[in-house]
Amino acid sequence: MSTAFFERHQQTLQNAMEACRSRAYWSAYSERPSPREYGETAAAEGQAAFEGRLDKPFSLEQPGTVGQVGEERSPYGRELGVKYPKADLDALLASVEEGRQDWARASIDTRAGVCLEILDRINKRSFEMAQAVMHTTGQGFMMAFQAGGPHAQDRALEAVAYAYEEMKRTPAEARWEKPQGKNDPLRMEKRYHVVPRGVGLVIGVSTFPTWNSYPAIFANLATGNAVIVKPHPGAVLPLAITVEVAREVLREAGFDPNVITLVADTKDAPVTKELATRLEIGIVDFTGGSAFGEWLEANVRAPVFTEKSGVNCIVIDSTDNLKGMANNLAFTLSLYSGQMCTTPQNIFVPANGIETDQGHKSFDEVAAAITGSLDKLLGEDERAVQILGGIQNDATEQRIAEAAKTGRVLLDSRTIEHPEFKDAHVRTPLIIEIDASEDATYEQELFGPIAFIVRTANTQESLARVLHAARKKGAITFGVYSTDEQVLEAAGETAMKGGVALSENLTGGVYVNQTAAFSDYHATGANPAANSCFSDAAFVANRFRVVQSRRHAA
Amino acid sequence: MSTAFFERHQQTLQNAMEACRSRAYWSAYSERPSPREYGETAAAEGQAAFEGRLDKPFSLEQPGTVGQVGEERSPYGRELGVKYPKADLDALLASVEEGRQDWARASIDTRAGVCLEILDRINKRSFEMAQAVMHTTGQGFMMAFQAGGPHAQDRALEAVAYAYEEMKRTPAEARWEKPQGKNDPLRMEKRYHVVPRGVGLVIGVSTFPTWNSYPAIFANLATGNAVIVKPHPGAVLPLAITVEVAREVLREAGFDPNVITLVADTKDAPVTKELATRLEIGIVDFTGGSAFGEWLEANVRAPVFTEKSGVNCIVIDSTDNLKGMANNLAFTLSLYSGQMCTTPQNIFVPANGIETDQGHKSFDEVAAAITGSLDKLLGEDERAVQILGGIQNDATEQRIAEAAKTGRVLLDSRTIEHPEFKDAHVRTPLIIEIDASEDATYEQELFGPIAFIVRTANTQESLARVLHAARKKGAITFGVYSTDEQVLEAAGETAMKGGVALSENLTGGVYVNQTAAFSDYHATGANPAANSCFSDAAFVANRFRVVQSRRHAA
Repeated sequence: MSTAFFERHQQTLQNAMEACRSRAYWSAYSERPSPREYGETAAAEGQAAFEGRLDKPFSLEQPGTVGQVGEERSPYGRELGVKYPKADLDALLASVEEGRQDWARASIDTRAGVCLEILDRINKRSFEMAQAVMHTTGQGFMMAFQAGGPHAQDRALEAVAYAYEEMKRTPAEARWEKPQGKNDPLRMEKRYHVVPRGVGLVIGVSTFPTWNSYPAIFANLATGNAVIVKPHPGAVLPLAITVEVAREVLREAGFDPNVITLVADTKDAPVTKELATRLEIGIVDFTGGSAFGEWLEANVRAPVFTEKSGVNCIVIDSTDNLKGMANNLAFTLSLYSGQMCTTPQNIFVPANGIETDQGHKSFDEVAAAITGSLDKLLGEDERAVQILGGIQNDATEQRIAEAAKTGRVLLDSRTIEHPEFKDAHVRTPLIIEIDASEDATYEQELFGPIAFIVRTANTQESLARVLHAARKKGAITFGVYSTDEQVLEAAGETAMKGGVALSENLTGGVYVNQTAAFSDYHATGANPAANSCFSDAAFVANRFRVVQSRRHAA
Repeated sequence: MSTAFFERHQQTLQNAMEACRSRAYWSAYSERPSPREYGETAAAEGQAAFEGRLDKPFSLEQPGTVGQVGEERSPYGRELGVKYPKADLDALLASVEEGRQDWARASIDTRAGVCLEILDRINKRSFEMAQAVMHTTGQGFMMAFQAGGPHAQDRALEAVAYAYEEMKRTPAEARWEKPQGKNDPLRMEKRYHVVPRGVGLVIGVSTFPTWNSYPAIFANLATGNAVIVKPHPGAVLPLAITVEVAREVLREAGFDPNVITLVADTKDAPVTKELATRLEIGIVDFTGGSAFGEWLEANVRAPVFTEKSGVNCIVIDSTDNLKGMANNLAFTLSLYSGQMCTTPQNIFVPANGIETDQGHKSFDEVAAAITGSLDKLLGEDERAVQILGGIQNDATEQRIAEAAKTGRVLLDSRTIEHPEFKDAHVRTPLIIEIDASEDATYEQELFGPIAFIVRTANTQESLARVLHAARKKGAITFGVYSTDEQVLEAAGETAMKGGVALSENLTGGVYVNQTAAFSDYHATGANPAANSCFSDAAFVANRFRVVQSRRHAA
């Protein structure tokens, strides 16, 4: 059975490995939520499956279950009412330790096959997942479908591809013959075993529960580790569904389902610190705030992979497409109300304005182009709510109110009533003008739909400010607009020094806050925003070790 | 010039990469200290070069030099009298930061070429290096030549090969075309830049200054990092020569020589903690004691690669070659007086004895076979001193005296007068019989020529004891002797669970404490003895990050 999964998905894995090497466009899972791709009944079935989850216990039949927890509330307005198993950690970890042994011993191919079968089944449930992601994160439907479904699945597959290639790099066996002059050579037979680190803890985030956790979950599984998934208390359901599917496939393949388990907790009774510092935990992956990420980095002795917060910047120097630039930035700032770790916060514009295809534009005119595009993009409520989604966390709304006091408001944040969900919290971006000297204000991460247009002396100052913020606070994305190759080169230099990915002159359907699996790395690991990226060899290679044996050859 | 180095050594690099993948026998640098390999005059020139170093300042023309330090004393009896530059860390680090920029920007090929040219020149000075290693570590000449010279050079090359392959895995450029249905595809040009972490600190050990530091030094250089080499105060000269050669090649290739620098200190005024926690330091590599290694792991935020101490074990279950086994173990225990992190300390033998090719042998007879082989191997002083070398550290001699009180002495440690060096401290191994229940004694690492023959109930207990020690104290090597495939399989299981490399039934010219570059991993990173190994992808992949840029395709 387990070999059958590998055979079924082998070509997909090969394609993924090739894509990682070429970094050309490739995707395994369709991002179009259309009947042609997913079947005529998929949307309705997904909706029904999601609704069937609500106001019920979510059964995973996990050992060490000692009650129920669950406190999710949809940013679109309703309590989900789903209750998850509450774990006795001692009992759960004992079962995980026992259950993981066969998985650790399984062949690399077998494990890869199981991983790809899990992804295939999750893919087929992308409409259900979209609803679960939408009603925990507040993302609009299309984004919840794409980022929560196929894009997350692609990132998972990417991690499996890296892990597979890394494990296969060492041969299972070797024959070693060392010449000894006139004597017979020394002859040894050697065997090399991939040995997982043990149990990987994956700590989820409220905004991208699947997308940000799948690389670690699947890299751990592929390398033979057990996985304990600890979702954010506000976004459990997407990961609970994931764990459910994974357990089902593991069982079918003849493995103990406790290779993957869910540990749910609440904001008032968090278990993450206790879990992360247990001796059984061999790897920790985390997405979330900097304070807790840094605590993990300092206090956990196992390898820790973190994606924390940062301050992303745009530098506007000049453009041959003012309208395209303004529209691109407006969409970027609006998408999911800026609740992405990749959304830019600071847009640096020279005080004297810039050269454009429409002639010289003053600082105020550049700012007005951006706010004008925002007004236009978000002018119709029905369309606006699809782009903006809902505000995931009440703290974000408070932050908008406070941020408005920090500078001159160029565009105030509006509250939009969602035509379909009356209790949804929908907010448009707040745009503030601020002087470059106010770095104490704009170098803080103000998560949510808040952006500064920062008045600098010139592009040189803009780039210096970007570098400073990236090194001090971290950054995941960086955009530049310029018609001058020398400025683009200087921006490239800034990107390398700040360890942040650069997007140049985006004026069309590619946005600075979006990355494509198999081609774009997400984060770099080279500044405080993250100590790793999705995905490269460093993300997978230390999740297993090689233990060898040798004997004289027969 | 820098391209010329790459062209000159390209084939060697290719061969090294192939050897890492096949893990068959291969070596780039001859281990035979013969005129045929190194030239008629090499030995004499090396000796003269070494002697020319003594009682003089060692000039490296490093910036920030504010005096001299040096306190090396040969275990063979004399003060070396070499004085090294003492560094003002602020001034030195400022120069390193400036000097490393061009190196970080150099092409992957250019850097690999420079690394291989450095190794080639170091190889040609292997006789000088052998003297330097011998008179700092106490190794016998042959071992100092091989382990300090060509074997260390092979390990360096291995690390360069891994780093090169890892960096080349991501293309420098890619074109990305995403279909958009009936619309034109989205077309992007992407560039990927390898960006080093910054400055790597490599902390050397007194017993294997080159062998244990070269993988990190050369992995760092290959990946574009600067390197600060901080040798053990007792073994500076081999690394000072290394740094001198590297600076010479860097200068010739048009780079700032401060890409690699030496920071020497003394036992009474150590600078390592200060250096390791400086913000400029992006990577730390360490070989040495567990206490300091654990301090680094807990207190340094940069990636830390450690090889610490452990307790290595041998399990004797049965053998079809009692004499070969005893001789092999005798040599293993004697080589460099057991001052290797790979030397076994505990030899587990069942109380009821074992089956052998010479019939059943009691516990005492097995012990006697080993001590008898030791007596024979070390019977002639002239031969014995070549194998044993000198004791590097006075603390080791005290440890021998104390260890003799812990159980029944089966073979006492003798002091041998070195025929050539009257002041050398030469000691033969101490062999103690102890009961398996005394694990508090034999599970401590007693570094040096001290071994326990541990009386266990049976092989099952022996294996359980090995696993316990490996998990609790760490282990780098593990040997088993058995004629029973099931026992060998159980030992393999123990090795995987304990994360330790296994050698089965070594009775010839391969020893449990020796590994071959390109084929055997040194340490695993899977138990407390080390968090990494020489060398694999995990050892190199996180020494650099990839920073990308993208723009719409023309």
